[in-house]
Amino acid sequence: MTILSRSLIFLLVAGLLAMSFAKPTRVVFFGDSITQAGVGPGGYIDRLKKMMPADQFELIGAGIGGNKIYDLFLRMDDDVLAKQPDVVVVWVGVNDVWHKATFGTGTDPDKFVKFYEAVVKKLKAANARVILCTPATIGEKTDFSNQQDGDLNQYSQLIRDLAKRQNLPLVDLRKAFLEYNLKNNPENKEKGVLTTDRVHLNEAGNQFVAEQMQKVLMEGGK
Amino acid sequence: MTILSRSLIFLLVAGLLAMSFAKPTRVVFFGDSITQAGVGPGGYIDRLKKMMPADQFELIGAGIGGNKIYDLFLRMDDDVLAKQPDVVVVWVGVNDVWHKATFGTGTDPDKFVKFYEAVVKKLKAANARVILCTPATIGEKTDFSNQQDGDLNQYSQLIRDLAKRQNLPLVDLRKAFLEYNLKNNPENKEKGVLTTDRVHLNEAGNQFVAEQMQKVLMEGGK
Amino acid sequence: MTILSRSLIFLLVAGLLAMSFAKPTRVVFFGDSITQAGVGPGGYIDRLKKMMPADQFELIGAGIGGNKIYDLFLRMDDDVLAKQPDVVVVWVGVNDVWHKATFGTGTDPDKFVKFYEAVVKKLKAANARVILCTPATIGEKTDFSNQQDGDLNQYSQLIRDLAKRQNLPLVDLRKAFLEYNLKNNPENKEKGVLTTDRVHLNEAGNQFVAEQMQKVLMEGGK
Amino acid sequence: MTILSRSLIFLLVAGLLAMSFAKPTRVVFFGDSITQAGVGPGGYIDRLKKMMPADQFELIGAGIGGNKIYDLFLRMDDDVLAKQPDVVVVWVGVNDVWHKATFGTGTDPDKFVKFYEAVVKKLKAANARVILCTPATIGEKTDFSNQQDGDLNQYSQLIRDLAKRQNLPLVDLRKAFLEYNLKNNPENKEKGVLTTDRVHLNEAGNQFVAEQMQKVLMEGGK
Repeated sequence: MTILSRSLIFLLVAGLLAMSFAKPTRVVFFGDSITQAGVGPGGYIDRLKKMMPADQFELIGAGIGGNKIYDLFLRMDDDVLAKQPDVVVVWVGVNDVWHKATFGTGTDPDKFVKFYEAVVKKLKAANARVILCTPATIGEKTDFSNQQDGDLNQYSQLIRDLAKRQNLPLVDLRKAFLEYNLKNNPENKEKGVLTTDRVHLNEAGNQFVAEQMQKVLMEGGK
Repeated sequence: MTILSRSLIFLLVAGLLAMSFAKPTRVVFFGDSITQAGVGPGGYIDRLKKMMPADQFELIGAGIGGNKIYDLFLRMDDDVLAKQPDVVVVWVGVNDVWHKATFGTGTDPDKFVKFYEAVVKKLKAANARVILCTPATIGEKTDFSNQQDGDLNQYSQLIRDLAKRQNLPLVDLRKAFLEYNLKNNPENKEKGVLTTDRVHLNEAGNQFVAEQMQKVLMEGGK
Repeated sequence: MTILSRSLIFLLVAGLLAMSFAKPTRVVFFGDSITQAGVGPGGYIDRLKKMMPADQFELIGAGIGGNKIYDLFLRMDDDVLAKQPDVVVVWVGVNDVWHKATFGTGTDPDKFVKFYEAVVKKLKAANARVILCTPATIGEKTDFSNQQDGDLNQYSQLIRDLAKRQNLPLVDLRKAFLEYNLKNNPENKEKGVLTTDRVHLNEAGNQFVAEQMQKVLMEGGK
Repeated sequence: MTILSRSLIFLLVAGLLAMSFAKPTRVVFFGDSITQAGVGPGGYIDRLKKMMPADQFELIGAGIGGNKIYDLFLRMDDDVLAKQPDVVVVWVGVNDVWHKATFGTGTDPDKFVKFYEAVVKKLKAANARVILCTPATIGEKTDFSNQQDGDLNQYSQLIRDLAKRQNLPLVDLRKAFLEYNLKNNPENKEKGVLTTDRVHLNEAGNQFVAEQMQKVLMEGGK
C-alpha cells in the first residue's frame, strides 16, 4: 500500500470519526522555544493549521523557551494532559545539549532517555498517541563542524532508538535538515538556510517543518 | 525544655513505641557517593549504627555515586519507597553544582527546587518523615574562594528555604562544616580537615556528619 | 606621613614635572567591556578626566568587551605599548571566570597568573608603571551566594599576591565593592547597587570606581 | 615526480647533508599528553626512532599532559627553542576542545588560531621548519556522534587553513584516524581501535601515528 493510499484511508477514517463524533483529533505540540514560536503567524503550527483539514484536526502549541526534557516532564500534567490530547508531538533536545556549553546545565544522555521514557509512559497512560521528533540543528554547516553536532547526533540516535523500541512514529528532523542543507547550503553557512540564528526557524524552516510534521500526522499516530 | 530533655523524651517515646510494636524506626539515607561510602566500615552510617540504639533504629543506606536531585527522583520508587521507610534523610546537591564545571550537566537552581519538592511530596505521600541536609563542601577553604562556593551557598539556601516552607527538620551540614573549618583549618587548606579530596569524608568527617545527623534524628523527624 | 600629605607632595612633584616637561602623565586603562564603557559619557574614565588635573594627566581607554587576560597579552603591542604610556592600569578577570560557565572558555587559575605576569613584564620592559585591579563583581549579593564568587575570590587573591610579589600598586575593587554592598545592599540584591546587570557599572558604580582609581593614581604608580 | 622519488631525493640530500655536516636533523615533537606518552617504550616517537635513520634524525619529545595551544606558547622558549631544533612538529588541540566540557577552560576558536600563529611565528623566527598536525580524536565513533566531534572538526579545519595560508606541511591525523576507523571500526566503538580511552594511543594507534608522521618527515620540512 502506498503512502498516498494509506494517507487517504487515514483521512477517510479520520473523516468518518469526525462525522460520527463531531470531534476533531486534538494534537498538542510539546516542546521548547521553537514550538513556542511555532504558533505565531507563519510559525510551523500556524502553517499546519492551514495545511490540514480544520474539522478533523485541532492543533495546540505547548512550547516554552529554554525547555529541556525534564522541564517537559515537570509541566506535562498542567500543560498537556489537562488538555486531554489525542496526539502529542514531542520535540525537544536542543537545550539538553546546548545548555551544557552556555549554562553548564545540559542533560546527561542516560538521564535524557530516562525522562523521555517517563514522558512517553505518562502520555500513553493518558491514552495519547505519541509522536517523537529529533532535534533539528544548532548550526547548519553540513561538514559536522558545528560545535554541538556530536551531541545532537548522539541524542537524536537515542530518540530514534526509543521510537523503535516503543514502536512510535518519528519525525526525524535532524536527518531531514541535514539532507535539505546538503542540497541547499553549498557555502556551508551556519545559519540563514532553514534558521535565522542556527537554531530558530526562518520562513523556509517553518514551512519545511510543517511539511515534515504533516506527513507523519496524516499517516498517523496510528 | 532543653535539647537534652527533649531528646530523652524522644528516646523514651521511641522506646515505648519500640516495645509496643517491636519494630524499630526505619531510616533510609538517600543521597550520592558520600552516602554510598557512608555504609562502609567507618562511614557515617556505619558510625551512626553504633551511636544509636539498635532496637529502636534500623539504618539503611541508599546512596549512589554521581547522583543529582533528579536522579533521586527517578530511582526513589525502587530504592526508597519500596523499603517503606519511617524516616528519609535526603542529602544531595554536590553533584548538581559540581557537574556544571565537570560535565556541563549540573542542575539549574529553579529545577533543583522543583525536583526537590517533588521528592519531598512523594515521600510525604508515602507517610515518611523527611529530613533535609545541605551539601557540605567542595573544597574546605574558609574564605569562600573554593570554585563552587557561590553555588553551594545558593543551593544550600534554597534547601533551607524549602525546609522552612514545609516545616521539615534540617541538618545544615554546609553551615556546620564551615564553622568546624573556621576553628580547625587555620591554614585555609582545601582538603584534609573533614574530607580526603575536597568532597568525600575522611575519618573526622564521617564522625562529624554522624554526630550532626544523630542530633536531628534523636530530635526527630517529629 | 599621612596619605593626604603624600598625595599633596605627589601632586606638587607631578605639577613641577608637568611645568618643566610640559607633558602630562599618560595613563592607559587596559581592560574589558567595563573599561570599554568607561570612556563613554558618565563612565569611570570620563569621570576621572573631570576629577584629575587635565594638564597633569592624560587618560586613555583601551578596553574591549569579552577580553580575558590572554586577550590583553595578544593585543598589548598595538593597543597599549604603541601609545607609550607612563602608567597602565590593568583591570581584567571577570571574563576569565565568567566564560567558564557561559562558553566553556574561561582561564585556568595558573595560566591566568602566567599571562598576567607576562603582561606586567612587557609593560615594565617598556618603562610603564603598572597598577593592578581585582575584578569587582559578577552579582552583588553579599553572602557569597553569587555563582562565580568562589572563583572571583580566588582570582582576586592571585592578583593581590602578584601585586605584593612585584611590589605593584593595587586597586582592590573586589574588596571595595563588597564593603560598599555590605553597607548599601541590605536586601542582598544581585544587581542595581553599583551595577546594572551584576557586572557592568551603573552611575554609582562608575563614580565609585573613579574614586577608587583616583586614590591610587594620585598616590601614584610610585 | 612521484612521492617515492621525491622521498628518495630528500633522503639522498639529507644523507649528503648528514655526511657533510655530520649533524642529524633535530626534530622536536611539541604537544600534550599524547606526545608525552609518545617517548615511552612503544610510543609513536619511540617507534619513529626505529623507523628513521638514526644518523640523520634526532627525535626529541616535548609533550606535557593537559597542554593547550597557549601552554605551548608559554613554555616554548625553554622547552623547544632552547634545543635549537631544525624541525618542530606541533600536535595540539585535543585539550583546547575537551577542557570546555571538563573544566570550562577550553580555548575560543579565534584565540586558538592567534596563539597557533604566534607559536609558528616564533618557531620560524628561530629558523625551525614547522610541521602542523590536526587533533586526532576524542572518541572513535565514525558517525560524528562523539561529543566533541563538532569542535574537533572545526579546530582541525582552522589548522588546515593555517597550514595552507603559511604553506606548511600538515599531518592530517584527524582525517587519517577517521578513514582508518571507517575501515576498521564497523561496530562504531568509541575506543579500542587506535586509542585506549577515546584519546590516548594504543599500540596500533602509536604505530599508525608513527607512520603518518614518518611520511611527512621524510618528505619533509622541505
